[in-house]
Order: sequence, then C-alpha cells, then structure tokens
Amino acid sequence: MINRKKTRQVNVGGVKIGGGADVTIQSMTKVETADVGRVVSQINALEKCGCDIVRVAVKNLMDAEAVRAIKKRINIPLICDIHFDYRLALKSIAGGADKIRLNPGNMRDSDEIAAVIKAAKKARIPVRIGVNSGSVIKVRGKGNSSVLVDAALGYIKLFEDFDFRDIIISLKASDVVSTVESYRRMAKLCDYPLHLGVTAAGSYDKGIVKSSIGIGALLLDGIGDTIRVSLTGDPVEEVIAGKRILSSLGLRNFGPDVISCPTCGRCQVNLAAIVNELERKLTAYSLPLTAKRPLTIAVMGCEVNGPGEAREADIGIAAGKKSGVLFKNGKIVKRVKESDFVKEILKFIKLKADS
Amino acid sequence: MINRKKTRQVNVGGVKIGGGADVTIQSMTKVETADVGRVVSQINALEKCGCDIVRVAVKNLMDAEAVRAIKKRINIPLICDIHFDYRLALKSIAGGADKIRLNPGNMRDSDEIAAVIKAAKKARIPVRIGVNSGSVIKVRGKGNSSVLVDAALGYIKLFEDFDFRDIIISLKASDVVSTVESYRRMAKLCDYPLHLGVTAAGSYDKGIVKSSIGIGALLLDGIGDTIRVSLTGDPVEEVIAGKRILSSLGLRNFGPDVISCPTCGRCQVNLAAIVNELERKLTAYSLPLTAKRPLTIAVMGCEVNGPGEAREADIGIAAGKKSGVLFKNGKIVKRVKESDFVKEILKFIKLKADS
Repeated sequence: MINRKKTRQVNVGGVKIGGGADVTIQSMTKVETADVGRVVSQINALEKCGCDIVRVAVKNLMDAEAVRAIKKRINIPLICDIHFDYRLALKSIAGGADKIRLNPGNMRDSDEIAAVIKAAKKARIPVRIGVNSGSVIKVRGKGNSSVLVDAALGYIKLFEDFDFRDIIISLKASDVVSTVESYRRMAKLCDYPLHLGVTAAGSYDKGIVKSSIGIGALLLDGIGDTIRVSLTGDPVEEVIAGKRILSSLGLRNFGPDVISCPTCGRCQVNLAAIVNELERKLTAYSLPLTAKRPLTIAVMGCEVNGPGEAREADIGIAAGKKSGVLFKNGKIVKRVKESDFVKEILKFIKLKADS
Repeated sequence: MINRKKTRQVNVGGVKIGGGADVTIQSMTKVETADVGRVVSQINALEKCGCDIVRVAVKNLMDAEAVRAIKKRINIPLICDIHFDYRLALKSIAGGADKIRLNPGNMRDSDEIAAVIKAAKKARIPVRIGVNSGSVIKVRGKGNSSVLVDAALGYIKLFEDFDFRDIIISLKASDVVSTVESYRRMAKLCDYPLHLGVTAAGSYDKGIVKSSIGIGALLLDGIGDTIRVSLTGDPVEEVIAGKRILSSLGLRNFGPDVISCPTCGRCQVNLAAIVNELERKLTAYSLPLTAKRPLTIAVMGCEVNGPGEAREADIGIAAGKKSGVLFKNGKIVKRVKESDFVKEILKFIKLKADS
C-alpha cells in the first residue's frame, strides 16, 4: 500500500539496502568493542531477534583490531562506526568491515576522507554519511533541517568527486520535527538510500514514541531503506521496536498481527487477559514469514466493531456476554466460550504454521 | 514548528477543540457505565494523569440513566458513546452529556438522527461523527479510505441540513496506512475539527507503535485537533501515551524532555541506570507547564554528539570516563562525577520549579 521511493541499491555484506529491497533493521552494540566475547554474544542475540545488520563503535586502535576477530564469529554484516580519526576506518576496512559510517561533523580533512573513500572503493564496501544534530549544529538554537542537509550534501560531493556512489545517508536530529523535515528535504535532492532514525530518543517508553513517529511518518511517505531505533537500554528492544514499526505499515511480515479493541463499558469478557495470553503463546509458533501480508487475528470486545474487524481478519472473534462469534477467512464458523478463545485461535494458527 | 490546519472550533463542556486550541487528549472508561462508583473513580484517575475529556459507552437504558450521577462527581467533560439506539443519545443529552458520539455504521434512520441533532442543538453540545473500519466496511478487503470518508460525508450532510455545524469527525481504521490516508483526504474536504486515532491498535507495546505512527504522522501534517490512543489495557496508559505523542512534536508541554543517547561501545558511564533514576525522580517536581517549550535535559554518553546535544539543551551532560562536562543554558559550567549527574540536574530543575 505504501509507494516506496526508488533509490540506488547498495550491498552491505550480502544484505541489500535501497532499490526496492525490504527495509532492513539495524542496531548497535553497547559494550566495549575490543571485548570480542561480549560483543559477539550481543550481536548473536541481536541476530536471533531479527536484526539484519549490526554496528559497532570503533573508538581506538584496540577496537579496530578486534574487527577481524568479531567478523569471524558472527553471521550478519558488520558496520564500523568511525568518528574523529580516519585511520580507524582504514584499519576497520582492512579487518573486513562490511560498511563504514563516517560523521561529517567530526571528520573534515579532505585528504583523510579521500583515503577512506579509496579504501572503501577497493574493498567494494559502502559508506554511510551519518549526520547527527549533536555533531553538526554549532550555534545554539540553529537546530534546523537545512544545517543537517547541507552537512550531508557537502560530504556527498567529496565522494562523487571520486566517482564513489555506494553511499547511504542519515540525518538524525534529537527532535522529531527536524528529523522528518531533514529526510523529506534530502529525499528530493538525491536518490541515495536513506537510513532513518531519531537520535538520542531517550529511554524505552518515550523513545518508542519518538522513533515510531519519526521513522513511521517517513516510511508512510515512501522514504527510507533501512532503520535504526535508538533507545537508552537493551539493543534487543531496538530491534523489536523496529519490527513493530515495519509490520504496522505492512512493509515486512514478522508474524501474526493481533488487532484488539481497547474495550469499553460494553465489553463482557476479560479481553486484556485474553490478548496477553494470546500474544505470549503466539511466540511459540514459527510461521512462514515469506508472505508480504502477515496473518491477522482480531480479538474484539463487542458487537459494534467486532463483527467487522473479525470478518476482515484471517481469524477473528467478536465477543458478547462470556462468549463470542468465531470468524475464519471472513465467514462465521460457530459460537465459542470465553475460555476457549485462545485455544480456537491457536488451533487455526498451528494449522497455518504446519501447512 | 508545526503549522496546524485551521479548523472550526467546538466547545465540549468548556474545553475547546479545533480553531487553534491545544490538541486535547481523550480516553474512555473500561468498566460498566451503570456502575457509577467505578466509572467515577476511573474518570478521576484519568483526569489526574492529564486526560482532558473522557468518554463512556452508553449501551442500554441503565447506562444512560447513570449519566446524570456521573456528571455530578467528575470535573472533566463527559462524552456519551452511542451505537444502534438513538434513544440512548436523547437520554444521555437529558442527563447532561457534554458531547455525543454517533456511529454512521449502525445508525442510519434519518428521522432518528434528526431527533438527536435537534436535541444536541437545543442542549448546545457538539456531536462526533465517529467512523470505524469495523462498522462501515461491509465487503471483505474493501478496507480503503474512501469507504470511511464517504460514510462520514453522508452523515455530515444530514447535520448540515439542520444547520448543525458543531461537528467533530473521526475516521479510525485498524490499519495505520488506511487511517492516515482517510484523515488526509478528509482534511482537504472540510474544516471540521478532527479527532485522531487508530482503532483496535492492540496491546501496549504494539499499540503504542501503531498509534504513534498514525496519530503522529497526521499531527506532523498539521492535521488533528484532539487525540485518543486506543490500547487493550489500562486507560491511564492511553493518556500517558497521548502526552508523549504531543510533547514529542512540541505541541504540548507535559514536563522536561530527556534527550539521552542509546549508548554504544564508546560509553564509559552507566547511562541507562542514570537516565532511569533521573526519569523516576523528575516526576517529583511540579514544573510550570504554561510554556510552549518544555525544559530539555540532555544526558549523553560520549564526546561525539554529547557536547552538541548538551549545549542545545537547557541543562546537559556529555559524559566521558566516569565523569562528564556539565552545560547550563548552552555554556560549560564544570566537570562532574558520574555519581553526581542526577543530583546536578535535579538541582537545576528544582531551581526552575521554585522560580
């Protein structure tokens, strides 16, 4: 349903970004990169929950030297995040990095940048030009989108001078409005794939809201090829939030979508408990995720919107007093007791999972 | 920063919706409306956490008869949610309802609708024309925005025939893309204030994402005058989520905004623990919320984006190794130990709260 903007495609260690490829989910490790064992275990946990590409901070020579060892022990592409010192990029590329992220806010010497561009070109890996409000906005209150966009444009020029076009762009501000404005502006100015994110979005509950609005509004516009939700906390939560954003917009399928009403004074079953139990048990089933559209399950509390949503879903229940009407593929099947709601839905899902 | 679309203004029991008024937050009770004691205690809890307007389901005569008693014991405007039976609307209006919500999907008789319009006009209260995908989409798969918009337009005509224009419109679909599309379409067709929401968004973690994207993307466009986050769970969470959406976009001020980075391999303080402690303790301070812009606090993990975000904030810390540089109003003040981060920030906030 979303008409995605056509961008160039780049290849990050076998994972495609842009050019119509599925929107990928990224995250970043939060432990010392030189501590290979801990980094690898965090990366493997991220991969297990659905992270497509992972990034590590390379802040010194020890971190850069760890890249080779990390690469050997992980299965997803590795991005090295470089600031200030271009030599760390060169060392990371030599260690097998699948992509480099540079920050226009703290690497300005054109000879140094040229050295990185040449090394990336030789290694056939892409570079993300990653602009952040905290790095480029030097005058207080000048937090507007043109500062971010201009920083990126200046950098892009340097790369194009070397005929290097395996570029990904990000323009992250810590406020949602500037972030969205910056990406919308940039999407009109180039066809490089865009990496979306709101920077420094904060802790889980607030960060989810900021990231969902910023990333979601852009994806709705068809803008964005890869995303990273930034949360102060466990990076696994960033990946799960990313999956929720993409599935909410029908851009990826990560399993059944449960449509459930908020309930009101009409509801005569314990819907919140039923939905919680269902969500918990659903994780036990591995459904084929190749389909674009996820399976939909509607669990609705009354006769107002219940029959409509239940009929629209693959399987649905419109509850009445202590029982409900079960719909499968748009047709009424039978009446079921409240205590059997979850059982009936799981039976249907299991059938789909096994078929 | 958001340029809000100009809409007509309606008055809901003293609270203004539309015409440049602040975007208001609504929720709905989830207990039997006839059980006055429980409804009142839920409404008072909602008011305490920032709910501007509350809605109750009026499903039968007993519920309608409870309206008068509820009104006497609450301080925020009361909306009565009516489906199927127009007589429940008449009885609710007689009981002192501040606004009526009708559903075009289940009340079609023009004489009955006319009776409600006349009663609302006499009582000088507005009516929300509340369209939901589950109520109006009768053919499976026809879940597109034009069905929702057409249902609303047909109803609006009936109201305008009686020169009744105290109307609020909602067009809630259970999928985010259709919801956003419907509201964008409607915003071009009329200047009635719009009540935003994604219907049946599901349980907390998924529902927050769907609601933030749907409501947030529209607010970013300048569309929307009042919002309701629908979550299968405690309605207080709906209000808190609503506050987070509005403050993320700078549309309302509900207290300090904490900007904190996700941390990475560069971070050498326990930032997640610091931010958690800070967020918990911040709730203890009642800050004046009259300002449009909330106070901003940046708690950043390293020297990459740290100094920039800390300088932009009202108070900020850019951490280094076990300590950090403290910024106040854009200027470096001193270096502080990791263990003093929260204390230093709270001292500043307390000063602002007391001034």
